[in-house]
Amino acid sequence: MQSDPLCSDAVLQTLHHLRTTSPLVHCMTNDVVQTFTANVLLALGASPAMVVDEQEAAQFSAIASALLVNVGTLTRERARAMRAAIDSAREAQRPWVLDPVAVGGLTLRSDFAREVLALQPAAIRGNGSEILALAGGQGGGRGVDSTDSARVALPAARHLARERGAVVAVTGEIDYITDGERTLEVPGGDIMLTRVVGTGCALSAVVAACCALPGERLENVAAGCRIMARAGEMAVTRSQGPGSFVPQFLDALWQLDAEALV
Amino acid sequence: MQSDPLCSDAVLQTLHHLRTTSPLVHCMTNDVVQTFTANVLLALGASPAMVVDEQEAAQFSAIASALLVNVGTLTRERARAMRAAIDSAREAQRPWVLDPVAVGGLTLRSDFAREVLALQPAAIRGNGSEILALAGGQGGGRGVDSTDSARVALPAARHLARERGAVVAVTGEIDYITDGERTLEVPGGDIMLTRVVGTGCALSAVVAACCALPGERLENVAAGCRIMARAGEMAVTRSQGPGSFVPQFLDALWQLDAEALV
Amino acid sequence: MQSDPLCSDAVLQTLHHLRTTSPLVHCMTNDVVQTFTANVLLALGASPAMVVDEQEAAQFSAIASALLVNVGTLTRERARAMRAAIDSAREAQRPWVLDPVAVGGLTLRSDFAREVLALQPAAIRGNGSEILALAGGQGGGRGVDSTDSARVALPAARHLARERGAVVAVTGEIDYITDGERTLEVPGGDIMLTRVVGTGCALSAVVAACCALPGERLENVAAGCRIMARAGEMAVTRSQGPGSFVPQFLDALWQLDAEALV
Repeated sequence: MQSDPLCSDAVLQTLHHLRTTSPLVHCMTNDVVQTFTANVLLALGASPAMVVDEQEAAQFSAIASALLVNVGTLTRERARAMRAAIDSAREAQRPWVLDPVAVGGLTLRSDFAREVLALQPAAIRGNGSEILALAGGQGGGRGVDSTDSARVALPAARHLARERGAVVAVTGEIDYITDGERTLEVPGGDIMLTRVVGTGCALSAVVAACCALPGERLENVAAGCRIMARAGEMAVTRSQGPGSFVPQFLDALWQLDAEALV
Repeated sequence: MQSDPLCSDAVLQTLHHLRTTSPLVHCMTNDVVQTFTANVLLALGASPAMVVDEQEAAQFSAIASALLVNVGTLTRERARAMRAAIDSAREAQRPWVLDPVAVGGLTLRSDFAREVLALQPAAIRGNGSEILALAGGQGGGRGVDSTDSARVALPAARHLARERGAVVAVTGEIDYITDGERTLEVPGGDIMLTRVVGTGCALSAVVAACCALPGERLENVAAGCRIMARAGEMAVTRSQGPGSFVPQFLDALWQLDAEALV
Repeated sequence: MQSDPLCSDAVLQTLHHLRTTSPLVHCMTNDVVQTFTANVLLALGASPAMVVDEQEAAQFSAIASALLVNVGTLTRERARAMRAAIDSAREAQRPWVLDPVAVGGLTLRSDFAREVLALQPAAIRGNGSEILALAGGQGGGRGVDSTDSARVALPAARHLARERGAVVAVTGEIDYITDGERTLEVPGGDIMLTRVVGTGCALSAVVAACCALPGERLENVAAGCRIMARAGEMAVTRSQGPGSFVPQFLDALWQLDAEALV
C-alpha cells in the first residue's frame, strides 16, 4: 500500500479557504473539549457553534457549513440529537464528520457509531485503535489512548473508506488520509499533542471545516491534518510544557503562513 | 439618539466594589464557556458558582448575589431549571441577567428567551443581532456571530429597556448601555475578542455581578463593559494571537488599576 | 492532635509512580473543570477519561485504575450514572474518591454524598466547610468557597476517616491528610490557587490517581497534595496573575523533579 506525500500548495490553499470562507461548523462534541475545539476553529478563521437540543440541532445543521459528531461523552439524549442533526445535514446536503472516540469496548458509543456509519459521513477521524474497532476489528484502546499505530490501522481505514464512500483520517505519529483508493501521508505532530486534552477532537472539527471547502475532499482533509501538525511542531519549540503549549498552539494556528508551511 | 460617555470614576468605583464585596454569581450558562466565565469572575474578585439541578438551582439563586441565564446550549431540562432559578431569585429580590445567545432562528431558545423576558430581568446583554431578534425585529445572526452592528440595534435596545424595565447592553465595536432613557457609550474592545470563545458570555456574567453592586445599575453595567473592553485592549498589546490573549486578558483583569482605566 | 510532616522521598516516589504506571482515572466530575482536570492528569503522566452514560460509566469503571466522583454540577441523571460506576468500581476492586463540592446547604448533592459515603470511598477530598458538612457538622460554605479553615475541620476529618475507613484530605492554606489514626500535614499552595477555577477539583482527580498507586495510601494521597501545592508555588513565582498561572502550573507539574521537591 503506497501513500503519497501532500504537496504544500494544497495546504496553503486549504488554509486560505478556511480564512476567507470561514465555514460555520456545528460541533456536537464531548464535554471535555468544547472550549479548545471552539478556540482552534476561531484561530483558523472558521466559526464554531455548539447547539445541543434535538430540535435546535436539526435546525442548525441545515444552515451550518458542516457538522461534527464526536461520541466522547455520549448519552442517550445526545445520541437522539445527533441523529436528528445528521438527518438534517444530509437533507440540506451538508457534510458531516464522525469522531469515534474510544469506540470499541463501550456499548452505547460503539453501537451508535456503527449505526450512523450507514448515514454517509463525509469523513471519519480517529486514532488507530478507534479506526480498527469501527471497521470491525479488535481495537486495543485504553481509555481514549490508542495502542495501535496509525500504520497498522491503514488497511482497515482503506476498507472503511471504500465501503462508506468517506475520507478516513487515521492519525498518530504519522497521519494517513485515505479515500480507499489514494492515500496521503502527513508527517509531523509531536508527543506533546498527547499530553494536552482535545487535540484529536479539535482536529476532527478542523476536518469538518475542511469538508465544507471547495476543492478535493481528500486533499482538504489531509491539509487540515498538516495544518494542525505543523502548528503543533511550532508550539513545541516555543513552550516549556503542556501548559504553555496550548496558547502557543493557538497562536501558531493564527500565525501560520507560507513560510511556516513550505 | 444621544449617548453619553462613561466617566472613569464610575469604572474605578465598580471595580473597587467587585473586589471588596465579591458578589457570588450563580452562572447558568452554556457548556462551552463555563471555565472561562468562572475564571473571568475570579480574576475580578467575584465568586462564580454553577449549579444546574432544578431544585438546587432554585435553592442557590436565593442565596447568590445575582443569577446569570445564558441560553447558548439550552435543553428542555435546563430551561426548567432556569425558570425555577429565576423564580427563586425574584422571590429573594436578587437581580438576574439574560444573555440571549443566538436567539432568532432557533426555536427552543427563542421561545424561552421571549417567555422569560416577562420575568423582569435586571439586565440583558447581547450583540446587535440578538437584541434585534429579542425585541421582535429580524436579527441577522450567523450562528453566534452578529451581522448587525450594535449601533443599528440601539433603537431596539432602548425599546426593550423601556418595555421591560431592564438595563440593556448591546455590545460590539462600541458598546451601548441603556435604560431606555439614558444611554451610555463604551469604546474599546478589539477584533481579537471575537477570535476567542466566551468573551461575550463572560461579559454577561460580569454584568450580573455588577447588578449586585451598590450604586446606579446603568452605570455599574456600563462600567462592567468598560472593564472588560480595557482588559481586552491591554491583552491585545501583550499577546501574539488568540492563544496568548486568554491568559493575558485574565491577568489584565487582575491587574487593572486607576492608571490603566483613566 | 499531632500531625506529621510528609517526607520528600515519599513525594518523589509518588511522582515517579504516576509517571511510570500512568493510572487511568475515570473522572465523573463537574462541567466547569473537565478540561483543566484532564490537563492536570496528563501533565503528571496519568490518563484521564470522562465517560458519562450510566451503562458505559459502569463498564469503564471496571477497567479504569480509579474513579473520581465530584458532585459540583450534579443532576439526577448523573447521580444514577455515578452510583452505577461506584458499584462497578467496587466489584472490580478499584478505588474511588469522593469530592463533596459545596455539600451542606444544597439538597441533591448533600443527600447523594451522604448516601455514597456508605460505599467505601478510598479517599475523600474537600475544603474545611465541605468536610465539616459531610461529617454532620454545620459547614459554613459560601458557594464553593470555604469559610472554615482546614485546621478547624481536622477533628471532623479524623472522625470521618475512622468511621468510613477512608483517607480524608481536608485542604486549605495547609492540607491535612488523615486515616483517622495518623495525620500528615502538607504546607504550601498559594492564595492564587483560589483565583483559578478547578484547582481543588483537579487535586481530587490527582488523589484518585494516587489511590491506584502501589505503596501506602495515606502517604500517596499526601504526596499528591504536596505535588499540586509545590507546582502552585512554582507557578506563582512565574506568573503575573491568574491567567498566566494556569499554563505555568501545568508546565510546573510536567517539570517537577527532585530538585524542585526536596
